[in-house]
Amino acid sequence: MSWFEDFKNKDLRTLARLITLCEDGDPQVIDPLGQIFSMPSRATVIGITGPPGAGKSTLLNTFVRLIRNKNQKVAVLAVDPVSPFSGGALLGDRIRLMDHFNDPNVFIRSVSTRGKLGGLSLATRQGVMLLDRFGFDVILVETVGVGQSEVDVRKIADVTLVALVPEWGDSIQALKAGILEIADIFVVNKADREGADRIENELKNILHISGKDSTPVLKTTFNDLSTVEKLLAAVEVYTHAQKEQIQKKREKAIHEIALELMEFWVLREAQQWMRSHLDKSSNPYEIVKRFQKKFPQGTLFS
Amino acid sequence: MSWFEDFKNKDLRTLARLITLCEDGDPQVIDPLGQIFSMPSRATVIGITGPPGAGKSTLLNTFVRLIRNKNQKVAVLAVDPVSPFSGGALLGDRIRLMDHFNDPNVFIRSVSTRGKLGGLSLATRQGVMLLDRFGFDVILVETVGVGQSEVDVRKIADVTLVALVPEWGDSIQALKAGILEIADIFVVNKADREGADRIENELKNILHISGKDSTPVLKTTFNDLSTVEKLLAAVEVYTHAQKEQIQKKREKAIHEIALELMEFWVLREAQQWMRSHLDKSSNPYEIVKRFQKKFPQGTLFS
Repeated sequence: MSWFEDFKNKDLRTLARLITLCEDGDPQVIDPLGQIFSMPSRATVIGITGPPGAGKSTLLNTFVRLIRNKNQKVAVLAVDPVSPFSGGALLGDRIRLMDHFNDPNVFIRSVSTRGKLGGLSLATRQGVMLLDRFGFDVILVETVGVGQSEVDVRKIADVTLVALVPEWGDSIQALKAGILEIADIFVVNKADREGADRIENELKNILHISGKDSTPVLKTTFNDLSTVEKLLAAVEVYTHAQKEQIQKKREKAIHEIALELMEFWVLREAQQWMRSHLDKSSNPYEIVKRFQKKFPQGTLFS
Repeated sequence: MSWFEDFKNKDLRTLARLITLCEDGDPQVIDPLGQIFSMPSRATVIGITGPPGAGKSTLLNTFVRLIRNKNQKVAVLAVDPVSPFSGGALLGDRIRLMDHFNDPNVFIRSVSTRGKLGGLSLATRQGVMLLDRFGFDVILVETVGVGQSEVDVRKIADVTLVALVPEWGDSIQALKAGILEIADIFVVNKADREGADRIENELKNILHISGKDSTPVLKTTFNDLSTVEKLLAAVEVYTHAQKEQIQKKREKAIHEIALELMEFWVLREAQQWMRSHLDKSSNPYEIVKRFQKKFPQGTLFS
């Protein structure tokens, strides 16, 4: 398989092609991915999530600029939830990232699930693995805070930023439960707008009540780059301090990749059986009972 | 199994219990569900989706009131996306439905996926099937327009309403592609607010360009019940006119339920194999290759 050689030779088209095959759930990727997986890993993976309109794209764009100023290679993986209510908007946001279009050390890619099998997280995880082994120093994974994706990003990223804007102040109480579990660092974007101090105080208050005082809350103003530099510095402090936990998380992710790939494989097989046994007028539960009878619990994989 | 008897005797606690078992993906439901599936079906299933803040809960509440005025039995199934950014807000919205708390002919229930397997749509589909066979005349299925759920609702509902509010006028272009495929009827809620005519015109314009002039666009004002009555009348006109297509969709859903149940069963088995073969330091792709070698393509279910 020459894919592995091309990948090792830093061929960007091979990288892009492999990500596409992962999205499609193509079984022929197993071999090259297995080889690539054994290559050294060095990237820092930063997850960025938050509700629509929280300035995630501008933050990403600024991150890319600052990381390039340090002469590091950076990849952006934007996770597209399959949602008709956000699809278009996301696409529009991303156009801003085109600033970096001609820079070969910036790789920007969105991933989406074409079919149902495999799921968003499998394609994203594998995309992150590929970008890491390819040699990017920083991988930014963006998900819009709708659906399951912002929970998944936490599993994939070394550090997860939850972005909010002052306008979300009134909704903090509603957000509370979920975001506290996700955020390693909170970012209040567009902090020159009214209400920034209030949302910062509310967040700190909630964090205090929940015994999570150590979670940083940082404010950024996009026309003041130093605010975003401070955020990147906080990311470094976090990943340095949490080195061991991050390592454990990465080891756990290995299991999850294997499990999800296997599920993918098994489901494809099972669907073929099903399709050949479906009968238009049947009671679906009768079909399932027939299947369970033919393949009783505990016998299928023995 | 006395579940079937209790269900036939209209025991609400049995109904609720069965929905919970479906959410949990409990395999012991297969038998009672198979029996219940054979009971007569008569409900109209109305799907309601739209972005957060589109007045879906108030619309639901008004629907429930009007349907009860006709002395029909009504069930509300609210689909909870597993999202930390919307969970709290949804819960708050639903409290309004408590107006009907003491009415035994109104059944209100939210469904969510506890685990990963099975998915939101399987629990929702089965919930709708149960409510239908239980004897409700109308089943309202509400999903918030985030993630995959609003695409799934279309498969489950006989007719799908997409709710918007005047404030969404500027975003219509971004929404366009997705919602045109989902909506059988558009509803502009809170139409006494500024911009209602503009959003109505934009929608009609987009529908015209897409050759979907026949898709109704209705405006509602919650303090004028006649506007919501007209919407319910439009739903009746639609379901009457589309009788055959709805029947076909329901037949297709039988296949999908069977497929999803089977997937659920198979995955549980496969995960057990995986867990017993995982090895902390392994390359996940090697594990998958080992699995594929032991169970080659086409041999697993033969």
